[in-house]
Amino acid sequence: MTRSVSVVGGGVIGLSIAWRAAQHGWAVRLYDPTPGSGASWVAGGMLAPLSEGWPGEEKALEFGAESLQRWPDFGAELERIAGVTLFTSDDSLTVALDAADAADLQTIADWVARQGHELRMLNRAQIRELEPSLGRGIRLGLQAPTELAVDNRLLMRALRTAAVDAEVLLIEQAVTDLDELTTDQIVLAAGSNSAQLWPDLPVRPVKGEILRLRARPGVTPVPRRTIRGSVHGRPSYLVPRADGIVVGATQYESGHDTQVTVAGVRDLIADAEVLMPAIGEYELYEAKAGLRPMSPDNLPIIGRVSDRVLLATGHGRNGILTAPLTADATVAILEGAALVEAESATAERFSLAKV
Amino acid sequence: MTRSVSVVGGGVIGLSIAWRAAQHGWAVRLYDPTPGSGASWVAGGMLAPLSEGWPGEEKALEFGAESLQRWPDFGAELERIAGVTLFTSDDSLTVALDAADAADLQTIADWVARQGHELRMLNRAQIRELEPSLGRGIRLGLQAPTELAVDNRLLMRALRTAAVDAEVLLIEQAVTDLDELTTDQIVLAAGSNSAQLWPDLPVRPVKGEILRLRARPGVTPVPRRTIRGSVHGRPSYLVPRADGIVVGATQYESGHDTQVTVAGVRDLIADAEVLMPAIGEYELYEAKAGLRPMSPDNLPIIGRVSDRVLLATGHGRNGILTAPLTADATVAILEGAALVEAESATAERFSLAKV
Repeated sequence: MTRSVSVVGGGVIGLSIAWRAAQHGWAVRLYDPTPGSGASWVAGGMLAPLSEGWPGEEKALEFGAESLQRWPDFGAELERIAGVTLFTSDDSLTVALDAADAADLQTIADWVARQGHELRMLNRAQIRELEPSLGRGIRLGLQAPTELAVDNRLLMRALRTAAVDAEVLLIEQAVTDLDELTTDQIVLAAGSNSAQLWPDLPVRPVKGEILRLRARPGVTPVPRRTIRGSVHGRPSYLVPRADGIVVGATQYESGHDTQVTVAGVRDLIADAEVLMPAIGEYELYEAKAGLRPMSPDNLPIIGRVSDRVLLATGHGRNGILTAPLTADATVAILEGAALVEAESATAERFSLAKV
Repeated sequence: MTRSVSVVGGGVIGLSIAWRAAQHGWAVRLYDPTPGSGASWVAGGMLAPLSEGWPGEEKALEFGAESLQRWPDFGAELERIAGVTLFTSDDSLTVALDAADAADLQTIADWVARQGHELRMLNRAQIRELEPSLGRGIRLGLQAPTELAVDNRLLMRALRTAAVDAEVLLIEQAVTDLDELTTDQIVLAAGSNSAQLWPDLPVRPVKGEILRLRARPGVTPVPRRTIRGSVHGRPSYLVPRADGIVVGATQYESGHDTQVTVAGVRDLIADAEVLMPAIGEYELYEAKAGLRPMSPDNLPIIGRVSDRVLLATGHGRNGILTAPLTADATVAILEGAALVEAESATAERFSLAKV
């Protein structure tokens, strides 16, 4: 007999789970009033667990690195199904603008190497050779040769195509109560809205604004890789696209507000101009905000909380990066197993079970 | 017998002429593929001929001041017809940030007074009392008690309603050759596209970018009047709206390009923050560029150039301000008369006639 599952939430997490579950023979219903329109649509699409590493955050590093390893196959399969090119960069470069930043990069490089991952320190001349358009104030760089970037919007379309091809039933309706759903199993993957559907779920929205830029005729070319840096104390990144750059991202704790502010745009532009001074020449065609579903410890929450309900939420800033591992781990739990690579994200670390 | 006229162009100039001509008994066809979508849609809507005055520019001052006098009746009639509130400010305040700006304001005040118009110099305390949210760097202000502001987008909708009520026939098609039109008379009012329809017409597009901001809960209130200033050598203005502020405007000579640039947005925000430091709290919901139809001498070009064709174009940055006078002057010419108040804008000052 075919087992059935409802997936609540059509962002990158929900769609990835729905697609994989359908491939495993589940009859899948995916509920979302506007699939693919939330944080996944706003995202930058950089997959950078290594260069975001920091001593003490072993579990987050390993979870991200494990999912990054799955990305080449995951992305290639989607590219084949949807007939698109998803990857827009094959590596990342984090730059330091002052001595403190340079010391931080060295700390990251040393610690990440000890965890068994490769990063390369680059001097100013090496950076200039790789990316001649970057700012002259840059003194040191950390290259992560395996960190990819994907076009998040093409990804969402590809996932939708793949899910529908695999016979996932997309139901464009909001779910207000999980008890309404009649399938054998339920996966709650509603991002920053998840807490409204499960009591005491410690997932809170953290607003992030991004800018989308398009190259204009004659402008300085798009960087060939993701560029990251800390500018004026704020994290800034430039993620390449086929025709431009995504600039991110601000971070505010302000409830479910998704308005773009003047100050947010001002800061994003100011920081991006430090990384790449000629970026002012680009067209600014969109400014948008999304809500990241943050967990208390910056690891996702993936696991069973009742006979029928699984959680797959709390992915914070890394939903796109961690989608492949999350989908595999969730399907494993649906099938009664568990994935050792995802055990740091278990729901059991919080008291969430409902009998 | 009813006389017929085609108006080419559905911006503020074309719609105003069409409406007034229909009121005078003309059978009017207005041609525009997308009426109201050009520079009029992007505009700030400040009506500020006096505070933009400068010695030597007597004709521009008088043309603008004459049209400003017509605005209260023109606007009130449209408000009645369309059932909307168009006016968003009753006066304007131009501020000086340094000694050179302050000297300029005194020059304008003295010269404009000699032309018979009232302006008031305000000191720092007076400015703070009127507009407590303005920047502390402001040292002097020039208040123009008769300079209004209108909501340009409500205006465009009201003009369209008024024109249709007056039986103007809106034809949403592009005109590529005036000879295609079969009416008795033709008015070319196509803004920055006008030069494509009349040989040697000296009207060129000058790109301008603006930002549209919306007040968020708890933000510093919208200024009660239009605020203008020269910041970093660039003209900056904040025009009140019922729910926010329009921030303008950049100025580039770059052909028919209407892309918004990163640098344009950066400059607009930086200058606006000098005028009103708390403006960063506002929502930025739109950035847009339009093409102003500039003439060589910054006066419009209004007049007959053949037995069938009249021009009403070249209104530069002041299309909304000068629409009432332009409409009256154009209808007068259609009827075989001429308006003495508009003679400085005559088409005869250029060699444009075609036999």
